[in-house]
Amino acid sequence: MHHPQQTSGMPIGKYVPFHEQIKVDLPDRTWPDNRITKAPRWCAVDLRDGNQALIDPMNSERKMRMFKLLVAMGYKEIEVGFPSASQTDYDFVRELIEGGHIPDDVSIQVLTQCRDALIERTYDSIRGAKQAIVHFYNSTSVLQRRVVFGMDQDGIVDIAVQAARLCRKLEETIPDTDVYYEYSPESYTGTELEFAARICNEVSEIIDPTPDHKMILNLPATVEMATPNVYADSIEWMSAHLDRRESVMLSLHPHNDRGTGVAAAELGYQAGADRIEGCLFGNGERTGNVCLVTLGMNLFGQGIDPQIDFRDIDHIRRTVEHCNQLPVGERHPYGGDLVFTAFSGSHQDAIKKGFDDMAKKSTETGKDIDQLVWGVPYLPIDPHDIGRSYEAVVRVNSQSGKGGVAYILKSEHQIDLPRRLQIEFSGVVQKRTDEFGGEVSPAALWQAFQDEYLPGTGEGETAWGRFAPITHRIESSDDGRDHIEATMTDHGREITVTGDGNGPINAFIDALAKVGVDVRVLDYAEHAMSAGEDARAAAYLECAIGDRVLWGVGVHSSIVKASLTAVLSAVNRAERDAIRAAGDPSASESVGA
Amino acid sequence: MHHPQQTSGMPIGKYVPFHEQIKVDLPDRTWPDNRITKAPRWCAVDLRDGNQALIDPMNSERKMRMFKLLVAMGYKEIEVGFPSASQTDYDFVRELIEGGHIPDDVSIQVLTQCRDALIERTYDSIRGAKQAIVHFYNSTSVLQRRVVFGMDQDGIVDIAVQAARLCRKLEETIPDTDVYYEYSPESYTGTELEFAARICNEVSEIIDPTPDHKMILNLPATVEMATPNVYADSIEWMSAHLDRRESVMLSLHPHNDRGTGVAAAELGYQAGADRIEGCLFGNGERTGNVCLVTLGMNLFGQGIDPQIDFRDIDHIRRTVEHCNQLPVGERHPYGGDLVFTAFSGSHQDAIKKGFDDMAKKSTETGKDIDQLVWGVPYLPIDPHDIGRSYEAVVRVNSQSGKGGVAYILKSEHQIDLPRRLQIEFSGVVQKRTDEFGGEVSPAALWQAFQDEYLPGTGEGETAWGRFAPITHRIESSDDGRDHIEATMTDHGREITVTGDGNGPINAFIDALAKVGVDVRVLDYAEHAMSAGEDARAAAYLECAIGDRVLWGVGVHSSIVKASLTAVLSAVNRAERDAIRAAGDPSASESVGA
Repeated sequence: MHHPQQTSGMPIGKYVPFHEQIKVDLPDRTWPDNRITKAPRWCAVDLRDGNQALIDPMNSERKMRMFKLLVAMGYKEIEVGFPSASQTDYDFVRELIEGGHIPDDVSIQVLTQCRDALIERTYDSIRGAKQAIVHFYNSTSVLQRRVVFGMDQDGIVDIAVQAARLCRKLEETIPDTDVYYEYSPESYTGTELEFAARICNEVSEIIDPTPDHKMILNLPATVEMATPNVYADSIEWMSAHLDRRESVMLSLHPHNDRGTGVAAAELGYQAGADRIEGCLFGNGERTGNVCLVTLGMNLFGQGIDPQIDFRDIDHIRRTVEHCNQLPVGERHPYGGDLVFTAFSGSHQDAIKKGFDDMAKKSTETGKDIDQLVWGVPYLPIDPHDIGRSYEAVVRVNSQSGKGGVAYILKSEHQIDLPRRLQIEFSGVVQKRTDEFGGEVSPAALWQAFQDEYLPGTGEGETAWGRFAPITHRIESSDDGRDHIEATMTDHGREITVTGDGNGPINAFIDALAKVGVDVRVLDYAEHAMSAGEDARAAAYLECAIGDRVLWGVGVHSSIVKASLTAVLSAVNRAERDAIRAAGDPSASESVGA
Repeated sequence: MHHPQQTSGMPIGKYVPFHEQIKVDLPDRTWPDNRITKAPRWCAVDLRDGNQALIDPMNSERKMRMFKLLVAMGYKEIEVGFPSASQTDYDFVRELIEGGHIPDDVSIQVLTQCRDALIERTYDSIRGAKQAIVHFYNSTSVLQRRVVFGMDQDGIVDIAVQAARLCRKLEETIPDTDVYYEYSPESYTGTELEFAARICNEVSEIIDPTPDHKMILNLPATVEMATPNVYADSIEWMSAHLDRRESVMLSLHPHNDRGTGVAAAELGYQAGADRIEGCLFGNGERTGNVCLVTLGMNLFGQGIDPQIDFRDIDHIRRTVEHCNQLPVGERHPYGGDLVFTAFSGSHQDAIKKGFDDMAKKSTETGKDIDQLVWGVPYLPIDPHDIGRSYEAVVRVNSQSGKGGVAYILKSEHQIDLPRRLQIEFSGVVQKRTDEFGGEVSPAALWQAFQDEYLPGTGEGETAWGRFAPITHRIESSDDGRDHIEATMTDHGREITVTGDGNGPINAFIDALAKVGVDVRVLDYAEHAMSAGEDARAAAYLECAIGDRVLWGVGVHSSIVKASLTAVLSAVNRAERDAIRAAGDPSASESVGA
């Protein structure tokens, strides 16, 4: 077998291999034989390293929402900002402290450069906190020493040591706060190990930590520069060369430039680290910080308690997406839309056999499925453990080569379904296929879509569902609040409801609450269906109704009417399923249930 | 420092650690001391493993586009489908062969299960190819043997061996094709190593490969089940226990369930593998296959030729997004929108100093910057090497806590910029800030946006730019083609142009070509700006004009008029910059140039 790959012509001469830049030599390494048996101490840096890498940095509403999410999940160390560099961050830290938002067992952490004025301002910002971690850093890499600071090693050490001295001194100014310290030799991965150890040791000598009052030494992969085993080697080396090791908490802070941030964290933790800093879903500079969700869930899948609660991963994800204004990718481990979806027939078949086997064992042993050891092919964990479900996506008309449900709806009907709705609707189609058998034609598919989401709009079809819209009137006041008066049929009887809210959908939901319907909108998408003045719009709303999450769809030339119709579509579907379920307990269960 | 993390309450009892499931014992491992020095043999499986995990599987147009992209990038082994399981795949393989689309040095690879009828159909599909790789597999894991097949080890071996025998026999039916073989013990990561070695060795005995005509043994992490060092240990063990090692090409096929697929591939390659299978940007089942772009670029950044051409990564990404109908994430290594963007002031400052240092060295040595060793903080590679540029994003009015450019445009003007346009416009604002200094008010920001993208629409403003739209007329024919007649001013003179295309934008671009303007649309987004009947739409078009890529914006109550205006916005900006550049050679250069 010949090897025909050719040279790419790319300018490889510009780059020097990592091992020619930094020597990491550890032939007697022990970390590959170690196993992870417990959760590290976590530190969430979403509000600092994550926030500083956003196109739209969080405002105080989004910051508070992120903080509360992190606390609710169980994080006990939360880096909340860089108060000396940003008034917004300063104000937020004050708001946390003065508003009493910090639980007693949570430590806020604040970042500062090693400059006197900034350090002083940092201490001002944390006054009144029960405890706080002051995190000071300076850049130590060969490259930054040369091109950014023009300093030798002694000069760089001096910056850090002087900062440590000032910190210890300022501690006296806030006697009511229990101050802990974190020092980071920033750009550690580009720093000679001997120098990294020297600067850490000189700093810790000043800080003078004890086993009962440790300090954190954080070794960031500010830029990921080598394979993750090299990072692990370096951590094992550092762990052996840090003075006062028993008084030091060795912390990791991997970025993901080479796509191996999770591996670097895991192997570095095996190599002797105590603590990991990262962000939910891997937000952060450039390619992101290491993903705390993936790290925590990887422990969970090995039977190790992550000490963080991921049981409602969709809620976590929605909150993170709101705060960061960045989407979580379809294939992101544990949280992506597609990660518990099987498309291939052979995978679906194996998964079904796995579920059958679990059910059989449950019957044989009299145990609940949640008490059995999980064992379903292609599903590394039970999706229900994090509030999700397994979805089998049916291939409609796959012989045509224009396979999917989504393709047909888009190309023939200008309906461009959001990803999760595509998967939901595929389940609807699956049930019909199972019921009536055989191939689904594009016409039957469209019929199924209309009947499920837009009842009464197809030809020769009758409407179903509790509510049907008639008219609405909206008034917007100067403060941005909308008042709605909506007329519709409720079980065939005409009613008019009124409500108020931030926008017409919220106002409508407020109105529905008055007739006993509880709706929360989780996601929203809307698009024009055709070009020109007479364009119609399609609106898609993902709603939580009672304990169910499901989608509604509305189509209308007015985008408001389309949205309101979509709300009613979701409500009608939820009520129908509740009635079906009351008659037949298994009717609303998902495949994986 | 106390450790207040609490138990999560998650059901960890359901999961058994990997080492209690599968024993991988290699205390004398050598791989952590190995270094990667050359590219592996690559195999791109986008058209099979990638395609089968899409909501909308590729049609033949998208398949062909993906195939041509992979060939152009330099991949020599391309898995093109599962022809015995899908008529679409079968037809596509025939189209490739009969249409003469396969270069002489490229081998197509086809997957089949180990069933007689499927294997026979597979050989039918490749008839006439110069060479082909027949890839047969069966599931070997403990879990699948038990719950899916109900078979012991001998039964599973028999399936594979019988398939190998049939393959060798059928080879005689297509004597003009040079047939190579790949065998995969599917779900290898859940298989006892001894059994994996046994089944591979029994298969290779039948296939009877030689050093000159090797066979591929592929060890898939069908589901990623442990940290990547464990996968590497298992690969080193397998490499030592495979018979006829010199006649075997040991191949890796990592998935990414634990977010460590890239690391598994790299460490497994260090451990003795010869070949890696994956997909561009990590498409594939669930969390995806390992990302071939990340793996290749990781080699490049170490000065190793990936033997794959990534010099136009945006083109690669756009093609992949078109074929897969899935977006590449903002933080995806090397290809994401945000990975060469610096938001933090200290990062921007360090990067600037790095560029200054490179420029100084270039002057001192008389060498071009591309001949110098790359060394810019926070930029692991030169973005220009893959056709991108470094972007510094300015923080507008960051004290307000409603920081970004994008936030202000969205909240105050209902302008919801696509991610790349946000970054482009931030550069525009940056230049203004540098020119006029100081903080940018929201009003000045809006002024800057209008002046740049929507000249002549602001109050008291005069229009600039070569073209201004007046009216248009569009006729759609039955075959879906549009004909446009557009009247506009060209340097103030009224002209009317006509064109045809698939949709109004394409027709308009066809019309512009007739007045010497060459435009290609790379990306398109559009949204309604407000609710109600009188809603206006905003259209954003990313265009290639000559050798520049830039955005245009249009706002109008007609979404067609908005789109056409956006085309002219981009064209006018490109022409203005070309004129400026002619006067001042540095005027259109980006910061990183």
